[in-house]
Amino acid sequence: MKIKITEVKMKYLLKIRYCGSAYAGFQVQKNADTVQAELMSAANRIFGARCTVTGCSRTDSGVHALEYYATLLPPECSPEISAEKLPRALMSALPCDIVVTDAFCVDEKFSVRRAVTGKRYMYLLFTKSYMDPFYIGRAWHYPRHVDTEKMNAAASYLCGKHDFASFMASGSFVKNTVRNITECRVEESGDGFVKIFIAADGFLYNMVRIIVGTLVYVNEGKILPEQLDGIILSRDRTLAGKTAPADGLYLEKVFIKI
Amino acid sequence: MKIKITEVKMKYLLKIRYCGSAYAGFQVQKNADTVQAELMSAANRIFGARCTVTGCSRTDSGVHALEYYATLLPPECSPEISAEKLPRALMSALPCDIVVTDAFCVDEKFSVRRAVTGKRYMYLLFTKSYMDPFYIGRAWHYPRHVDTEKMNAAASYLCGKHDFASFMASGSFVKNTVRNITECRVEESGDGFVKIFIAADGFLYNMVRIIVGTLVYVNEGKILPEQLDGIILSRDRTLAGKTAPADGLYLEKVFIKI
Repeated sequence: MKIKITEVKMKYLLKIRYCGSAYAGFQVQKNADTVQAELMSAANRIFGARCTVTGCSRTDSGVHALEYYATLLPPECSPEISAEKLPRALMSALPCDIVVTDAFCVDEKFSVRRAVTGKRYMYLLFTKSYMDPFYIGRAWHYPRHVDTEKMNAAASYLCGKHDFASFMASGSFVKNTVRNITECRVEESGDGFVKIFIAADGFLYNMVRIIVGTLVYVNEGKILPEQLDGIILSRDRTLAGKTAPADGLYLEKVFIKI
Repeated sequence: MKIKITEVKMKYLLKIRYCGSAYAGFQVQKNADTVQAELMSAANRIFGARCTVTGCSRTDSGVHALEYYATLLPPECSPEISAEKLPRALMSALPCDIVVTDAFCVDEKFSVRRAVTGKRYMYLLFTKSYMDPFYIGRAWHYPRHVDTEKMNAAASYLCGKHDFASFMASGSFVKNTVRNITECRVEESGDGFVKIFIAADGFLYNMVRIIVGTLVYVNEGKILPEQLDGIILSRDRTLAGKTAPADGLYLEKVFIKI
């Protein structure tokens, strides 16, 4: 009789928060600083060998994350580090604009991509005539009056399960463009700031930024709220608004099933 | 009979807001970037000649200003620019971390230093175990439980007219060290942030940062609230707490009489 020895391999789920201004998004790229590259380099240094880091989602260049999840799989035979001690260990090797706020042990088969059931983004507009010096790269300077009622009227058309092909950047070849938006609302948050919250089970490429650009067009009277239905049905990207800049975009909440 | 022609010279009062992380304070210094140097360089470019810029207060290296006042005196024979148009003109020549939010015309004899009747500082602590990546250089990372009640008990001893020599950095040779603190309070502001507000008719060198350091010692039990009276009376800097870092310090409000 052969005895099969199953080695228990440690896989960690990391909860992360980062200011994306200095990075070309999450995903590793050639010749560009990315959050994933920084995490891998920190993990490699801590575990003394090549680790695998997998993110829950791509984020664009300059986009921020108030909450983000990634898994970290150290190679076999690497030193054991408790999940409790891992955040501090990693942060000793990470730049200060990337923070690991928590770490949990998960099964080796756990896939962070599959575990995500939804995400919520927050888009930040700054509406005063001057740009706030504390929000350079962290909000879109939009020096106009914002009619949140009108924008919310338009936003309500977006809620629900629709084909959002009109709100996907050209160059993306995803086949299924149906998504379920569970929340889309605009609120003034004082001191000239306006926040737009958009939650869905998934997002197409640049979807949030195109929705924000469309809501801004609604604010300016270039699109009427009641036209949103037609824009969705058209599946025509050119009928929606411009793509809002990455600066104001924050991945705010990741809904995850562990 | 001789007719005296009095030329009306334009002097502007500028309301400013800046993120101080990149600057060695407000005041011009050799071999260091300062807010005043940036303002002068922008004004010189706009008016095409050497302008005089005077600030309402010194601020230390790395200290921020949510509100700051400075006067700008262009040389005679320089082009006239309306106060309304001046902020936008200056900002075209300023780095984006310094913003001129308003400009007003004032009498040539107006002195911004003399016009200030008081100032309020806000000091920002971040108390979670990790440092928020969006507040690097903008808050003091103080990863401890904060007992605001105890700190406020100590703060109340500081309110009123006292000799604050114990709260002045050594190396300062101001003779009159009596100041009137009109407000000193500590409040939790959610998400791990704690704000300390200190308003007075004037401040000694590093006074706010030494008061914050002292309140933090009170939080840690190194100083008892009721010892504050004795520390004030001692006029001994060594009895107060450490000087808190500049990162968390914001000039929040300038009380000015125009």
